[in-house]
This record gives sequence, C-alpha cells and structure tokens, in this order.
Amino acid sequence: MQPDNAGKPIRCKAAVSKAAGQPLEMEEVEVAPPRAHEVRVRIICTSLCHTDITFWRMKDFPAMFPSILGHEAIGVVESVGDHVHEVGVGDAVVPVFLPQCGECADCVSARSNICSALPYRPGVMPRDGTTRFSLAATGEPVHSFLCVSSFAEYTVVDVAHLVKLDVVGPAPALPPEKACLLSCGVTTGVGATWKVAAVEPGSTVAVFGLGAVGLAVAQGAKMRGAKRIIGVDVNPDKFEIGKKMGITDFVNPNDIAEKTAVSEVIKEMTGGEGADYCFECIGSVSVMAEAFKSSRTGWGKTVVLGVDGSLAPISVPSFDIMRGRSVTGSLFGGIKPKDDIPVLAHKYLDKELELDEFITHQVGFEDINRAFDLLQQGRCLRCIIWMDDGAKENGALA
Amino acid sequence: MQPDNAGKPIRCKAAVSKAAGQPLEMEEVEVAPPRAHEVRVRIICTSLCHTDITFWRMKDFPAMFPSILGHEAIGVVESVGDHVHEVGVGDAVVPVFLPQCGECADCVSARSNICSALPYRPGVMPRDGTTRFSLAATGEPVHSFLCVSSFAEYTVVDVAHLVKLDVVGPAPALPPEKACLLSCGVTTGVGATWKVAAVEPGSTVAVFGLGAVGLAVAQGAKMRGAKRIIGVDVNPDKFEIGKKMGITDFVNPNDIAEKTAVSEVIKEMTGGEGADYCFECIGSVSVMAEAFKSSRTGWGKTVVLGVDGSLAPISVPSFDIMRGRSVTGSLFGGIKPKDDIPVLAHKYLDKELELDEFITHQVGFEDINRAFDLLQQGRCLRCIIWMDDGAKENGALA
Repeated sequence: MQPDNAGKPIRCKAAVSKAAGQPLEMEEVEVAPPRAHEVRVRIICTSLCHTDITFWRMKDFPAMFPSILGHEAIGVVESVGDHVHEVGVGDAVVPVFLPQCGECADCVSARSNICSALPYRPGVMPRDGTTRFSLAATGEPVHSFLCVSSFAEYTVVDVAHLVKLDVVGPAPALPPEKACLLSCGVTTGVGATWKVAAVEPGSTVAVFGLGAVGLAVAQGAKMRGAKRIIGVDVNPDKFEIGKKMGITDFVNPNDIAEKTAVSEVIKEMTGGEGADYCFECIGSVSVMAEAFKSSRTGWGKTVVLGVDGSLAPISVPSFDIMRGRSVTGSLFGGIKPKDDIPVLAHKYLDKELELDEFITHQVGFEDINRAFDLLQQGRCLRCIIWMDDGAKENGALA
Repeated sequence: MQPDNAGKPIRCKAAVSKAAGQPLEMEEVEVAPPRAHEVRVRIICTSLCHTDITFWRMKDFPAMFPSILGHEAIGVVESVGDHVHEVGVGDAVVPVFLPQCGECADCVSARSNICSALPYRPGVMPRDGTTRFSLAATGEPVHSFLCVSSFAEYTVVDVAHLVKLDVVGPAPALPPEKACLLSCGVTTGVGATWKVAAVEPGSTVAVFGLGAVGLAVAQGAKMRGAKRIIGVDVNPDKFEIGKKMGITDFVNPNDIAEKTAVSEVIKEMTGGEGADYCFECIGSVSVMAEAFKSSRTGWGKTVVLGVDGSLAPISVPSFDIMRGRSVTGSLFGGIKPKDDIPVLAHKYLDKELELDEFITHQVGFEDINRAFDLLQQGRCLRCIIWMDDGAKENGALA
C-alpha cells in the first residue's frame, strides 16, 4: 500500500552544501516523488565518510552546488515508483553509492562489482539524469550526490542502489546505526580482505591508514585468520582502538629513524620478507608505492582502497612486479551490494564482525556540521547523524 | 655409474662473450667437475632468447666478462656431484634459470614460483658463489650466466635448476629441439595464461609484442579457450605466424591514425569494453601502461612479462585501478620448473601445445653469432643451435 504522500512532493529538512568547504545550511527542500525504478526513502540515520569531505572541499566538477551530500545511511521506504518490486513501503533499506542492476555482464560475473548498466552521473539520478531535489523557497534545483544524498530527511534512490535488510530493529536485532555503517566504509574494508585479497589464514597483513576503512580491513583480516596485522598511522591515538579491531603491531612513520622507509621497518618486522597483503587506505600515491614495497616477493598483494585526490598515477617498480607481486584496486572492497551486505549484517548478529567500536560519536541532524569538524580532526571514526532523536533512543524505525 | 671423466675437468668448446655487443668467440674452456648438489651436463642443443641479447649488450653489472651466456637448452647428465639423487648419468635434463629447491616457503606454496632458498647471484654458481669455467689457454675464470651457461658443449648446473624429462627422444617422442624450447620463453608465455592470469574460456586477450613469448601467450590463451586473441606488433611479418598460433585479430601501432592510442583501438574492437586479459611481452614501461589502459574495467588483468631494461617504474592511473583492474607480474610465467615443465612436455605429445612453429632457424654451434643477427633482425622466433649436427639429424641424445 502506498502512503498518503505517494506521487506527491514532500517538503522536509536537508543540509545543503552551497559552496566548497562552507558549513552545510539547513534548508527546507522539496523532494519529488520517485519515478520509474526509483524509491523515496525516509532516512533514519546517516554517517559521515571521508569521501563526503573530499567532495565538500572540492571547488570544481565533479563537485556541484548546491547539493545534498551524504552516502552512508539507513532508511525506510516511503513510496515506490513504477516497476519497483524488490522493496515495498516500510522496508528497511541501505542505500549504496554503487549500483547492482543484477543483469549486466559485470553483475552476473563473480569477478566484478562494477555494474556496467548504470554508470555514475555526477549530481543526478542515474537513469534520467535529473534531480529530485529543489529548494522549497525558490524552486532552484539541488544536485544529488553519489546516487544517495542522505543528508536529508527524505531522499530518492534508484532501486539498483538499494539493499533491503530484513534484520534491522532494536537490539538483539541489527540496530539502525550499525546497519548504516554497512553502507560504505566498513563494508569496503572488510570486503577488500574477503573479496579482493582473499586473505589466507596465518598471513601477515599491513594496513596503511587506520581510519574506519583501515580498521575495517583489520577486522576483516582477523575474521579471515590473519596471524599478524601491522597498522601504520601517524596518529598514535589510533593504536588503542586498533588493538580492539585486531591490529597486533604498530608502525608510526613519525617515530622511525630519519631516512628509514616504512617498508624497511615492515620488512625487518617480518624477517626480511615483507607482508603477504598490504592495504592502502589513505589515497596517497606515495603511500601506495610504499605499500607495494612492503609486500612480499613471490606472492605479495597490494590492494589500493584510497583514491588519490590528484588522480596521480601509482608508480610500481617494473623489476619488482616481475617477481610475483601484484597491485589491485577495488571500489567498495569488491562487494556486490545486494548479495554481500546482508551477509555482513548476519556476521554482525553472529558476533563475527565488530561494528560497535566504529561509532565514536553521535549527533542530531541539526548538529551535522559538528560531524565534519570531528572527522577532520581525526578524533572520530564514524559519527552517526540521527534525523530524529526518537529513533536513536529506541533503535526503532518508526 | 659415473663416467670416465667423473671428478675430472673436461676441456671443450664454448662461445665466450668477452665484451658488450661483440661477437662471441669460440674458445677451448675447462669445465670443472660438479661439486655437491651440482650436475655436469653435456648440452645437446640450445636456443637464443632476447634475455641473452639484453645481457650480451649490457656494459655494466650485472653483466660480467668474460662469460658464457645461454639459458635455453637441453642436455644429458654427464656426471653428478655429492648429494645428487634426483638425476643420474644419461638422463635428459632441461636446465632452467629459475631454481626450485622444493623445500622453502615459496616452493611449498602454490602461490609463488620464486624459490627463496637460492636467490640469484650474477656470474656464479648459486650455492658457493664460484664458477666452474676457465679458459683452457690461460686459466682465467669465465663467469656463468643465469645458473645455466648453455653456450658450451658442457656446463655445470645446480640440481635445483634442472628438470628431468623422461620423454625426450626422436619423434614420436619429444625431440630435443622441442624440449629445449620449454626451458624459458615458450614456457613463460604459456605459463602466464595458465598460472598467472588463469584465462577463462570465452575471454578476450590482448598480447603486446609477438616474439616467442607473446606467441606462446597466444598459444596458451587458445589452449584455455579464449574466444578472441588480439596481437599487437609493429612488424607485420609476425601476423602470418601469429595466425598459426591462435591470434585472431591484429593491431599494428604504425597503421593506426596519428594520436590514436592502441588502447583506444582495442576498446573499439571490444565494444568499448577493453580486453579481459592483457599481456606485455616487450619490456617497455610505456607499453605496460598502454596494456593496462586496454584492460576492461571491473576485472581486467594486466600481466607484465617483459623487463624494462631501464628498470623504470610502471605508471598505473590510481583512479582506474580502483575500478577492479589489476597489474601483476611474473617470472617464468608463474611456472614451477620441476612440477610444470613435464606437464607441458606431455601437452606437446598430446598435440595440445604447438611448439614446431617457434623454430624458425637452426644452425651449428660454430654459427652461433648468426643466431644473434637473426633474432635482432626480428626475422626469427627461435634459432636452435646444435652442438653436434648428428643429434640434429636423428633427434637422438647420444
């Protein structure tokens, strides 16, 4: 059954980004009804990821203004457009920046998670290239972001970008703020150890950058039986939380002797060999090169998870790559959203996957700019932003 | 039973490299008896590989003078040193530049073929760091090359570098000149499609550089059921032979429009997608980058088989590698010599693997410098160099 607002615009609050690096402004926006293959979602809570900050700071295309950022969230289906059969009103759904149409060559192959049917179009809906948002006061269109735009009480998402999660609810079910984490960063890190690297039991793993993605890599490596997990970060505060996530050894680049490379320290720690798997979770080409150097001859695998803002190329010594080492990348940790996110939800419920420790802060929607401050200060892994404090209190979706 | 010469030096002919780029000189050399874990081998025939030419041209370390080059060969065990039980006098053996001790972490792992027990030591035997060769006239030591030094009637090889082949003999057995090919280049190309890329049936494969290694990649890809095999080479003469090896489409970089990249042509040929697997068989970092660009988003795999002489780094766009593409290298195509070369020998006997077409020229040992000319002119895939014309006539080892 469609609700009263079905087919009609909804007016609601949204945190609008109007200029690069400027605080978001709370505005009343109009959210158009979902078109064919689209779903209007009431956001329960959202969280802030570094990719939001990267685009928030960006002055030029693909950044667009005004826009509604946000792409880690959980919500409830408010109404659906034509041809939507996969989800119905009231379903708990996780929106994801990466689509899964389920039918293209990539979606049907086990080797790819890059849906080729719906390539990303900055600022607009993936199928018709328009936006569902406008400012209520002026009617000015507002761009969407990564096909999600979760910094709003309501958003419209293509059904290919939605994952239905049946297990969301107050604990012992999956509380919404935990489900929200599965929408991007944590899933990327865990997925990379599982789908991309296929970390083998007893392995040595090095993780460069201990933000939420890096710590999720540590979690994933631990789940797959890695024996030794070396964390690399310049912020010593990350080491305490890292231990809880499975990190066994730490390297702080600021604490090692001058002119000594991190890769030399890692080789020394591993009896001269290097790590079996190296994960770059920062997005720096110099760190990518260092991660590669830290990998073992014969089978060392370097997985690149961070995007370098400058889009500079990675430099890989041609002699070393001949000796059995490889570099691979992945978007979203190789995860196919609809297939794999429900698996991770169950792993949390089965206490195999730690999610609680990622949530270091929680704020109300009106304090969203504080979340930006906290993440930039490096004091935060994930800050949950609640649209309605009532949901925060009882974990319910209503 | 050890022969009469066992434990004594042998005097024989060798083609000695005395200065970078200068013709080899036929000299009488003394070949010391094998020490512990070593085997003295009478070479039946050898062939010339581009790596011999690379080192022959090289002025500085790791090139060393005088030396005996050559690393693709087949021979017969003349005598063995202490602790050698794996082969005995009269056995047909293929020497290989890559060792397989069978006991180190790499040899026991399915993931690596880079034996870590016997790292390469330029110019000398791998275990004791000395050479078994000297000039008969002056006693001056002569360096060995890649642990093989097959441009001599007799050589000494560590048993870890020897593969015993029971099936060698006049056709319908495996003729020695075919077995010789399995020693390096052909095995590298076939191995890369099998052990490194694991090419899937129905795939599209692009091969950059149609020398013996590139054509062996085509052979390997065809054996694994690739549907389309695109060969890239500036020499149109390679296209005729390429067809026999499984190449279905050709791209000559000299024939495409100016300012059009080979990768754009390959994308166009594949409906905008790119190839599933790209193999770089030249050793040029610019071609490596182009191969990567020609690979498909989602799962495209670039395998680097050539070594860039300048050891310049490979440049990989960090944005592209995020979208599921990977770069991997391999030495010897991921082949474990003792495990896998006998498998390839049987594939030849079962008519699954084409070897005959690789042999474009054959010369006697005294004409070895002609083989260098032929390979440099691009008119030759493999030139077999026979130590004794009698063996050439009847394919026998005696």
